[in-house]
Amino acid sequence: MAHAVSPLAPAGFPAMPEIGGVRLAAAATGIRYKGRPDVLLAVMDQGATVAGCLTRSKSRSAPVDWCAEALKGGSARACVINAGNANAFTGKAGVATVKAVAAAAAKLLNCKPHEIFQASTGVIGEPLNPAPITGALESLNADAKPGAWDEAARAIMTTDTFAKAATATVKLGGKSVRINGIAKGSGMIAPDMATMLVFIFTDAALPSKLLQKLLSKAVDKSFNCITVDGDTSTSDTVLLFATGTAGNSTKGLKSADDAALKGFAKALDGLCLDLAQQVARDGEGAEKLIEISITGAENDKAAHRIAMSVANSPLVKTAIAGEDANWGRIVMAIGKAGEKAIRDKLRIRIGGVQVAKSGMRDPAYKEEEIMPHMKGRSILIEADVGVGKGRATVWTCDLTHRYIDINGSYRS
Amino acid sequence: MAHAVSPLAPAGFPAMPEIGGVRLAAAATGIRYKGRPDVLLAVMDQGATVAGCLTRSKSRSAPVDWCAEALKGGSARACVINAGNANAFTGKAGVATVKAVAAAAAKLLNCKPHEIFQASTGVIGEPLNPAPITGALESLNADAKPGAWDEAARAIMTTDTFAKAATATVKLGGKSVRINGIAKGSGMIAPDMATMLVFIFTDAALPSKLLQKLLSKAVDKSFNCITVDGDTSTSDTVLLFATGTAGNSTKGLKSADDAALKGFAKALDGLCLDLAQQVARDGEGAEKLIEISITGAENDKAAHRIAMSVANSPLVKTAIAGEDANWGRIVMAIGKAGEKAIRDKLRIRIGGVQVAKSGMRDPAYKEEEIMPHMKGRSILIEADVGVGKGRATVWTCDLTHRYIDINGSYRS
Repeated sequence: MAHAVSPLAPAGFPAMPEIGGVRLAAAATGIRYKGRPDVLLAVMDQGATVAGCLTRSKSRSAPVDWCAEALKGGSARACVINAGNANAFTGKAGVATVKAVAAAAAKLLNCKPHEIFQASTGVIGEPLNPAPITGALESLNADAKPGAWDEAARAIMTTDTFAKAATATVKLGGKSVRINGIAKGSGMIAPDMATMLVFIFTDAALPSKLLQKLLSKAVDKSFNCITVDGDTSTSDTVLLFATGTAGNSTKGLKSADDAALKGFAKALDGLCLDLAQQVARDGEGAEKLIEISITGAENDKAAHRIAMSVANSPLVKTAIAGEDANWGRIVMAIGKAGEKAIRDKLRIRIGGVQVAKSGMRDPAYKEEEIMPHMKGRSILIEADVGVGKGRATVWTCDLTHRYIDINGSYRS
Repeated sequence: MAHAVSPLAPAGFPAMPEIGGVRLAAAATGIRYKGRPDVLLAVMDQGATVAGCLTRSKSRSAPVDWCAEALKGGSARACVINAGNANAFTGKAGVATVKAVAAAAAKLLNCKPHEIFQASTGVIGEPLNPAPITGALESLNADAKPGAWDEAARAIMTTDTFAKAATATVKLGGKSVRINGIAKGSGMIAPDMATMLVFIFTDAALPSKLLQKLLSKAVDKSFNCITVDGDTSTSDTVLLFATGTAGNSTKGLKSADDAALKGFAKALDGLCLDLAQQVARDGEGAEKLIEISITGAENDKAAHRIAMSVANSPLVKTAIAGEDANWGRIVMAIGKAGEKAIRDKLRIRIGGVQVAKSGMRDPAYKEEEIMPHMKGRSILIEADVGVGKGRATVWTCDLTHRYIDINGSYRS
């Protein structure tokens, strides 16, 4: 069942408003793909504060190392992203490439190199020649327009089957502010910090330290709660740029918990969760979106680990692909998580129907009751492990033949 | 590519000698499978000392709980194993079943119930009726013969495509002693303590405490070093029975490290590794056996975690299924393991050919050099992570369409 577009994709690309101070353009430079845009430039003409969450991989890519340094400055003028080559595990050549791109963009935009943020996605271990990117920067800057969100989201795709974007508008400091986000990712997706490439832009005025706290919180509840295959990328990057053109007041804003920030934080959380779910919906080969809610764990962290153990279990994921309500495999995956669970208090629901309680099959459970649910596109698994009050919800997709088709021949 | 028998299976069933004091018989009781043996009885008429390693799953099965209790006694008279139903997550009914089987076997053999060891494998969450098992015990005991190793290994199979056994003969305390082992397992295989069902019998005389130490060491280097899908069973059990009929001296044997035990320990280690590799060779859908050797880690435990991160990576496993030397995914899997690795010192070999060094592709590496290796049945991956002297080797198999075929419809 090869789908041109994931069967779990949203109905269409959302209507994205412009974000004051942000212009976007994409170009087809042929780095790897032919005849499609593969480089994105986002320019923030008046500058922006910036926050980011990066992969915790021990073999992270040169652009991730670059962003880690650049984030210390807290301000941004542009972001350059390419698809097709991750510039990861490319040694000194990889470092030279990010420096060359930063230098060229900084010269063009008359800013410091560390105000140029970068991200790369694609094959690992192939040297990335900076020339196609640096050569495209001038015309990209000339072409960049405030409304090119669809084009931007498309330029950063690799094995994605649809462009991912989300938007929110919310009140902050006496003004209406907008938040736009785009994301890419459908394989090598796992929950260790920011997952995949995600770029979020807002016209809110917010100092970078506050922005970082708000972003870290949002990422923990969204991108860190999805998994496609348990494989963590070398390049995972989430960046949030705030241009401040909305002109909201920042007076008295001290902590991310300030009441005045509640609306913005909630909107950012919601937007991140929307994008994260879009990534899970585009999981390689996905036919079903799976939501896993764990309650009754020792604490929230334990609940998260248990939920991820279920979400990453190949046996759970293949059973769901086969539309088989094989809840014994859910029991197995809870048991192997290494967190406290009281077997004889375990309670499991699928699609809202209780299948197991008190450590055994619910005598009232009839498998045919949940067959319509298993045949649907959205699968809900709820389990209470009977220990405490910890809870967590994560999202994943099923494991199908398409995943193997895609990944047995991605490079060739 | 559906194989009746794994393409990685050994040439044939090994010639297994008799073990003094052990008789075996299997019966077809129709618990789940029709027309094939599904219950195994191993009787040790003069008794045996016993050691065991059990799953650390938090949702372990009733027979595993039973064995944990029974192991405290250190002595065994029989072992009853059934295939087709794991008697896991079956609540009080599951406990009643193991008690009923133990009571019936103990009465028949005139021993204590806790001298009856048990294991069950198959579907989770279905009540297991003890009657077919208890009803078969008398004729099983009457039929049991010292030479029925092939029949025994076949009776405990589930999705296995070949019967797994290994044997060793070694000098101990002035006598020649034999060790025979049988194993089952091809899915839900992951490295948390003893994996799958493994039963090892020796005619050596060895006190149970020493036996336990020798077994635990052997399991750490064998069954805990294989993975098929990262899913840990609720029922993993390795039991080692020593009948003592070889009549070897046990004088002066105090510690598992005694020089006099070296030969036995080495033989036991080798036999466990052989059985463990047979399990990996029968991994569900396996087309290739993959050996992953990590060196240069902070310590051996860190090396093991890194090796398992590579072995459990769906992206590494699908690339190998596609005969793609996609070493960038090995870099990714090393990076996500969470253990120290110095990216710019990373060195990777595939099939003995260096593909990456100093954190980037080896300039001398030509992909065509390793294509013949990628097309073979045995894949060797070696990586040095440049930190310290820790090392570990693990075994797994590739991830193919057959895994999804098998697990999307195992129950139906």
